[in-house]
Amino acid sequence: MPDSATQEPTDERLQRLSDVLESGTVQQALRILNALHPAEIADLLESLPPRQRALVWELVDGEIGGQVLLEVGEEVRNSLISDMQADEILAAAEGLDVDDLADFLQSLPDTLLQETLQGMDKQNRARLEEILSYPEDSAGGLMDTNLVTVRADVPLDAVHRYLRMKGELPEHTNQLFVVDRYGNYQGVISLHRLLTQDPDALVADTMDSTISAINANMGSNDVVRLFEDLDLVTAPVVDDRNRLLGRITVDDVVDVIRDEAEHSVLSMAGLSEERDIFAPVVQSGRRRGVWLGVNLATAFLASWVIGRFTATLDQIVALAVLMPIVASMGGIAGSQTLTLVIRGQALGQVGRTNIRWLLNRELAVALLNGLVWSLVVAAIAVLWFHDYAIGAVIAAALIINLLCAAAAGVVIPFVLRQLDVDPALAGGVILTTITDVIGFVAFLGLATRFLLG
Amino acid sequence: MPDSATQEPTDERLQRLSDVLESGTVQQALRILNALHPAEIADLLESLPPRQRALVWELVDGEIGGQVLLEVGEEVRNSLISDMQADEILAAAEGLDVDDLADFLQSLPDTLLQETLQGMDKQNRARLEEILSYPEDSAGGLMDTNLVTVRADVPLDAVHRYLRMKGELPEHTNQLFVVDRYGNYQGVISLHRLLTQDPDALVADTMDSTISAINANMGSNDVVRLFEDLDLVTAPVVDDRNRLLGRITVDDVVDVIRDEAEHSVLSMAGLSEERDIFAPVVQSGRRRGVWLGVNLATAFLASWVIGRFTATLDQIVALAVLMPIVASMGGIAGSQTLTLVIRGQALGQVGRTNIRWLLNRELAVALLNGLVWSLVVAAIAVLWFHDYAIGAVIAAALIINLLCAAAAGVVIPFVLRQLDVDPALAGGVILTTITDVIGFVAFLGLATRFLLG
Repeated sequence: MPDSATQEPTDERLQRLSDVLESGTVQQALRILNALHPAEIADLLESLPPRQRALVWELVDGEIGGQVLLEVGEEVRNSLISDMQADEILAAAEGLDVDDLADFLQSLPDTLLQETLQGMDKQNRARLEEILSYPEDSAGGLMDTNLVTVRADVPLDAVHRYLRMKGELPEHTNQLFVVDRYGNYQGVISLHRLLTQDPDALVADTMDSTISAINANMGSNDVVRLFEDLDLVTAPVVDDRNRLLGRITVDDVVDVIRDEAEHSVLSMAGLSEERDIFAPVVQSGRRRGVWLGVNLATAFLASWVIGRFTATLDQIVALAVLMPIVASMGGIAGSQTLTLVIRGQALGQVGRTNIRWLLNRELAVALLNGLVWSLVVAAIAVLWFHDYAIGAVIAAALIINLLCAAAAGVVIPFVLRQLDVDPALAGGVILTTITDVIGFVAFLGLATRFLLG
Repeated sequence: MPDSATQEPTDERLQRLSDVLESGTVQQALRILNALHPAEIADLLESLPPRQRALVWELVDGEIGGQVLLEVGEEVRNSLISDMQADEILAAAEGLDVDDLADFLQSLPDTLLQETLQGMDKQNRARLEEILSYPEDSAGGLMDTNLVTVRADVPLDAVHRYLRMKGELPEHTNQLFVVDRYGNYQGVISLHRLLTQDPDALVADTMDSTISAINANMGSNDVVRLFEDLDLVTAPVVDDRNRLLGRITVDDVVDVIRDEAEHSVLSMAGLSEERDIFAPVVQSGRRRGVWLGVNLATAFLASWVIGRFTATLDQIVALAVLMPIVASMGGIAGSQTLTLVIRGQALGQVGRTNIRWLLNRELAVALLNGLVWSLVVAAIAVLWFHDYAIGAVIAAALIINLLCAAAAGVVIPFVLRQLDVDPALAGGVILTTITDVIGFVAFLGLATRFLLG
C-alpha cells in the first residue's frame, strides 16, 4: 500500500489547478496542463468531479488527446468520449500508434469504428484488423505491430547500416525479430548481441533461435506469467502457422497486472465495473444496488433460519444477544481461507493434486482456533448470563461453524471455477451465506435441543 | 482473474512430478526438474506440501538454488533456508547478481549476513553495503548496480568498440548512463540512439540530458507510478549530491506492483503475512487467531449493544429475526464505499481537495439505494409479520445505517492515513463495527420508541 507521501504530488498539482480553475485564469491553467505528461493529465482528470473534469478536458491539446484517452480508465474514457464530436474523436485517434489505436477503437461505438477504419491507409488498416480479430484478453489483443525484422543471412554490419538508415526504433525495442522470406518466425537477435558481437558475423550465427514465440491465442494471464517468470521486455507473437504477427511489450503486461489486481479487489465488494469515483450518482447507485440486492436475499435467508427458532428465542432472550457472534466469527475465518485459496488458484499453486492436503490443513487450523476462541467466548457468555449450559452451547456452535467455514473456503473456489464463475466476485457472498446459516442453525438448534425445558 | 486454463501447465507438471515422487524414481524427477526455469521451480515448491517440498528442494541443483530462493515468496524462502547449513546458503548466494544478493541477504539471519559480506571482494562489498543502507521499499533498496557508464566527450564509435570489448551487457540494459569524471549523473544515451545515429557524433550531442534521475530516497510507490506513467524499462538512481548509484529495472517494479496488489487483498482478510499456503498449522493458526480475536472483540461490542434492548426483544421476537438484515446491508454498502476510497487514495485520485465532493456523492448514492431497498425490506417485513409499524421501523433504520456507512467509508481511510495505519488492513473491521453498532441501535432503538406499549 502506498504511504501517505505517495499522493502528495498529484494532490498538490490538483490543488493548484483547482485554485486556478476557480479563479478563472485559463491561461495559467493551460500552462500548468501543457507541462504535464499525458499519463499525468489522465491522473488529474480521474480525480476531478464531472464539471471541473469537462472544463479541464476542453483545455487539453487536441494532439495529445488520444494519448490521454488511452491512459484514463475505461469508464472515465467513455464519459469523455460521449461529449465529443465524431471529428474530434478521429483527430484524437490520429496521433496514436497502431496497437494503441486498436485499444482505443475497441471503446468506440461501431459506426465511429468503421469510419475510422475507412480513413486509414491500406497497410495500417490490415494490421489493425488483424489485432482487432483477437479477443482483448489474448496475446493477439495485447500485441502491437511495431516490429523491426531482419533476415538470417545478412551480416550484423548490414543490420547496423539498416538501423542507421531507419533513424529510430519503435519504443521498447530490445531485440529484432528474424524471419524468413515468407514472414515465418525464426528467432530473435537482441540489441545487446548486435552491439557486442563482431560486425562481420552473420545474423544466423548470432541470433537466439531457442526463444519460442507466443501464440496469438494464448490467454493474457499466461502471457503475464511468462513475462514475470522469464523477466521479458518484449516477446514475439505468431499465428498457428508460425507467421510473425507482432510483439508484446512489458508496459502492456504491467497494465494487465494492474487491471487484474484491481479487478479482484473491486470484485470482492461487487464493484467490478465501478472505476470512476466520480461517475453519476444514479449510475453508481444502480450498479451497487444490484450487489446490495443479492446480499439482501442472503440476509433474508439468514432471517428465515432465525425465524424457525422464534419459540426458543421467546424463552431465552440471551440467545438473540449472542447469536451474531457465532455467525460473524464463521464469516471471518471462512474469508481467510477463501482469500488464500483464490490467491493460490490465481498463482497456480492450488489444484487437483493438493486440494485434499489443503482441506485437511485448513480444517486443522480451524479446529485449533475453534478450540481456543470457543473457550474465550464460552467464558464470557457464562460470566455474562450466569449459565454454564449457554457457554457449552455457544462453544460447540462456534467450533462447528469454524470447521464448516474452512471446508466452504476451500471447496467454493473450486466449484465456482468448474462453473466458470469468478471466485473473487461470487465467493464471498456464498461463503457468508453458508456461515450465517450454519452459525444460526448450529447455535439456535443446539440451544433448542439442550437448553429448553 | 486468471481463467481455469491458467493453472493447467503448473498443475499438470505438478501432477507428473508428484506421481514421480510417489513412485520414487528420483532420476526421472531430476530430469523434469532440471528442464525448468528457476521461477518455475519456485512455483512448484510453493504448491507442494512440506514433506514433498523438502524432497524436491533436495533435488534442486545447488548452482540455481540462489535464484530459486529469490523467486519463492518470503515465507517459503524462510522455511527453506531454515533447513540449510550455513555453507549451503553461502554457495547458493554465490550465483547471484549484486542486487539480487541484496534482496537475498536481507532475509538471512544477521550472523550469516556478516559472514557472507566478509567473503566478498572489496568492490562488491562496498556496492552491496550501499544498497543495504537504503530501506527495502525505497528506490535505493530497489536498485541494482549493474551499470554501463560512458563519458560525454567520446564519439559513439568509441562506445561501440567499448561494448564489443565488454562482450556482453547487463540484463535489461536499454540505455547507458553518462557520468562526469566524479561519477555525477549527466544524462542517458539509449541503445536506440547508439544504433541509429552517426558513429562519429559525440555522446554529448546524442545523449538525453532532460531525463532526471531518481533520488535513492524516493519511496517505492512513487517509483512504480513513475515507471507506469512514463513506460520506463530502466531508470538511473542518484544520491542527494547527484552521484550515480545504480539503476532500477522494470522487472523489480513489476514485483513491487504484484506485492502491493497481493498485500491489499490479503490485508483485508487479516492475512498480510500469510503467503505460504502450506505453512505449519500452528503458525498459521496463531496468525489468523489474532485477527479472529480482534473481530471477536467487535462482535461482543455488537452483542453488548443488543443486550441493552433485551426488554424490547423479549416482547417482540420478530425484531430478533430481522435485526441482522439492517446490520449486514450497512456492512456491504460501507465496504463498497471503503474499497473505492482506498483505491482512490492509492492511485492519488482522492485527497483533501475533493473529499467533501466525494462525501456528498457517496451520501447521495446511499440515499438512493436506501430508499429503494428500504421499500423492499419494509414490504417483506410487513407481509411476513403482518405489522405496518415494524415495516416503517426497519425502513427508517436501514436508511440511517446506509447513510452512516457511506460517511464512515469515506472518512475512515483518511483518518487511518493520518494515523499512519494501512486502511486496507484496519478499515474493514472498523467499518463493520460501526455499521453493526449503528444498525442494531437504530433498529432496536426505533422499535423501543415506537413499537412498545
